[in-house]
Amino acid sequence: DSGAFAQVRRMINRGLPPQDVAHLLESSPPKERDLLWQMIDPELQGDVLQYLSDDIQMIYLKRMNPEEFLTATEGLETDDIADLLQQLPDTIIQEVLVSMDAQDRHRVEAVLSYPEDTAGGLMNTDTITIRADITIDVVMRYLRRHQSLPESTDSLLVVSRKDHFIGVLPITRMLVSDPNITVREVMDTDCIVIKADMPDSEVANLFEKFDLISAPVVDDDDTLLGRITIDDVVDVIREDADHSLMSMAGLDEDEDTFSPVLLTARRRAVWLGINLLTAFLASAVIGIFDETIEKVVALAVLMPIVASMGGIAGSQTLTVVIRGMALGHISSSNTPWLLNRELIVGVINGTLWAVVVAGVAVLWFNDLTLGFIIGAAIVINLIVAVLAGAALPLILKWMKIDPALAGSVLLTTVTDVIGFMAFLGLATVFYLS
Amino acid sequence: DSGAFAQVRRMINRGLPPQDVAHLLESSPPKERDLLWQMIDPELQGDVLQYLSDDIQMIYLKRMNPEEFLTATEGLETDDIADLLQQLPDTIIQEVLVSMDAQDRHRVEAVLSYPEDTAGGLMNTDTITIRADITIDVVMRYLRRHQSLPESTDSLLVVSRKDHFIGVLPITRMLVSDPNITVREVMDTDCIVIKADMPDSEVANLFEKFDLISAPVVDDDDTLLGRITIDDVVDVIREDADHSLMSMAGLDEDEDTFSPVLLTARRRAVWLGINLLTAFLASAVIGIFDETIEKVVALAVLMPIVASMGGIAGSQTLTVVIRGMALGHISSSNTPWLLNRELIVGVINGTLWAVVVAGVAVLWFNDLTLGFIIGAAIVINLIVAVLAGAALPLILKWMKIDPALAGSVLLTTVTDVIGFMAFLGLATVFYLS
Repeated sequence: DSGAFAQVRRMINRGLPPQDVAHLLESSPPKERDLLWQMIDPELQGDVLQYLSDDIQMIYLKRMNPEEFLTATEGLETDDIADLLQQLPDTIIQEVLVSMDAQDRHRVEAVLSYPEDTAGGLMNTDTITIRADITIDVVMRYLRRHQSLPESTDSLLVVSRKDHFIGVLPITRMLVSDPNITVREVMDTDCIVIKADMPDSEVANLFEKFDLISAPVVDDDDTLLGRITIDDVVDVIREDADHSLMSMAGLDEDEDTFSPVLLTARRRAVWLGINLLTAFLASAVIGIFDETIEKVVALAVLMPIVASMGGIAGSQTLTVVIRGMALGHISSSNTPWLLNRELIVGVINGTLWAVVVAGVAVLWFNDLTLGFIIGAAIVINLIVAVLAGAALPLILKWMKIDPALAGSVLLTTVTDVIGFMAFLGLATVFYLS
Repeated sequence: DSGAFAQVRRMINRGLPPQDVAHLLESSPPKERDLLWQMIDPELQGDVLQYLSDDIQMIYLKRMNPEEFLTATEGLETDDIADLLQQLPDTIIQEVLVSMDAQDRHRVEAVLSYPEDTAGGLMNTDTITIRADITIDVVMRYLRRHQSLPESTDSLLVVSRKDHFIGVLPITRMLVSDPNITVREVMDTDCIVIKADMPDSEVANLFEKFDLISAPVVDDDDTLLGRITIDDVVDVIREDADHSLMSMAGLDEDEDTFSPVLLTARRRAVWLGINLLTAFLASAVIGIFDETIEKVVALAVLMPIVASMGGIAGSQTLTVVIRGMALGHISSSNTPWLLNRELIVGVINGTLWAVVVAGVAVLWFNDLTLGFIIGAAIVINLIVAVLAGAALPLILKWMKIDPALAGSVLLTTVTDVIGFMAFLGLATVFYLS
């Protein structure tokens, strides 16, 4: 039905804001998504692209030639253009840069020269700068000569003749100041200034802590390079928070909810394979005790309980510590307290549930020894689990391995191996000797 | 050493910004935290309190009487006072409200009349409002009469004589406008306006999508009630993102990293107990097949592999779907596609890893039948796991149960029961008949 088709096209290009078009694309399975994408006018594609997740951006960026890229991204802010460019291969980046006009190229290159996950990669270069020795009235007249001010402009940046950063003049303060006094008298020199090489998660923490809307970015010589705005920081906060959740299931935070079958299958297969190694290790431990199990089959019935309780207790601690690390709460000074608390919690909850499980086991199999064995195994496994849950992320971080990604697999390995070993080992001592 | 003590006190009350003091408290074990808290000057306590997580706020709020609360919160913004008040019992809230001056009481009551997790509970009531028929120049002179403007003021709110919301005048637009034209000519009437009863997560999505710094809040009659600012929205975004991560481990997103032993033990014990029921169910399933295991002890050795592979595959799907739901990607129109993709991914990865595990099993135990049985069980369990991982959160959401909290327990139940049932059931058919 070409009438409906034309209507959708009209809605996409004239009715909906680009954010909503991006959300529509992200909420569509691949085929419908491609169909929708093709309906977007070429000069609007860049507007939509910047709001898409990295995974989906990649799909459509790869299909563009440098000319199409330039058409699509005309009018975008420098940091957003740099963001998109960073996803492309180096040769394409060069081709695009060559086709830009000198000023734009210079600005995009400035952003591109910093890694994507640093303040420099996050910054925007279109700032409004003023001198300290002019009056507020002059500033106001200067501003009025602009067609518009850059988005999220909440303050003007005060610089020296050599572009060294001196301070900020918040617009709200300017508006309540006497027009005849100079910028120097009202500007704020004690403000948050961000070095270009600061990691983006630290930038996010600063914005969150001090309720910033924008902050100036400088190089090592305090030369002003640009500014970071809250909208880009919100994306970093969202991605950082998503990262822990997704990594703990072996997923990427950029993962597209509707990524196609083969891509999904391949990515997840890797994680299943890694976990299979853990499972085989657990099996090998059980295999050591096959004679014991043959004699007392109740052990096979109860053994998953020991491993599972350890897994749950450990993953709770792991989650708390990974979150605490992300929030910057955990340092070497409070780690001993944390390990100690986990140890006591492990002893308390281990004992509590050991008694319950032992009771059930005794009633179920009418075997006092079995109750004692499973109770002891649960206490041992829960203590080891909570200590491992607290220590693993700290050790992994120290080894520069992502705790959210590797933590859960390693923890399961520990709780499975220790759980089966303790339970079946104790059983072997009591039943076979 | 009282010299060091005095120095810490000085640093807390004069050196560090309240955000850093709050972070220091959050990073300290309970005893050190109490010690630090007592060093904070009473009139600075409110400043620090507003930056603490709910769990820790609660501890110190409970110790305050209404008078101390008023001293501590003097000078805070209305939404922040309301936030703190909301944590207290109703009788204390009334006592505090009675002691406030009329204007403050009226403002705080306006915020308190909405649930904490709605736009009304998030809003701030100190707005700068203007009329549409005055000139920009008059607005500027009106602003200059203020000592300062409310924080995060990026626009002035245009209202009618009866306080009906008409539009916004972005400050950056005002600065580039001719001073002689009226507000009506430059104001923006097509802006995002938020109803007071909108859930806070929807507010966060709007801010994120449209890069907002502030937005007006109105009631059903379009009467202006206040405005929401990005700093409060960032907290909502952080909490919402934390919620999924923490809930999946049975934890609360407000959980204090350094909460004391007994509180921690009690909270976690509940989650362990719930998971124990799941584990017993799995044991009961194994118990059905104890004769089979007695005959072929290799089954006991291999059975955790079947359950574990299902658990991993299912939790990957569960995480993707829960994240997709939080981002608003998943609706009834694309659910069939999603279930279908998961089914195919389950078949592909199930088959792939079934072949690998079957091969290892055959080589290990020199038993072709065993290889076939475990392979078939893995295919069955992985398919059920991914379908359950995708369907469970949708069903739970429809039943108004939090999918992040209940999803992982239910999923483990499904993958354990189906895994053991398929593996041991098939084994019983092949070995005992």
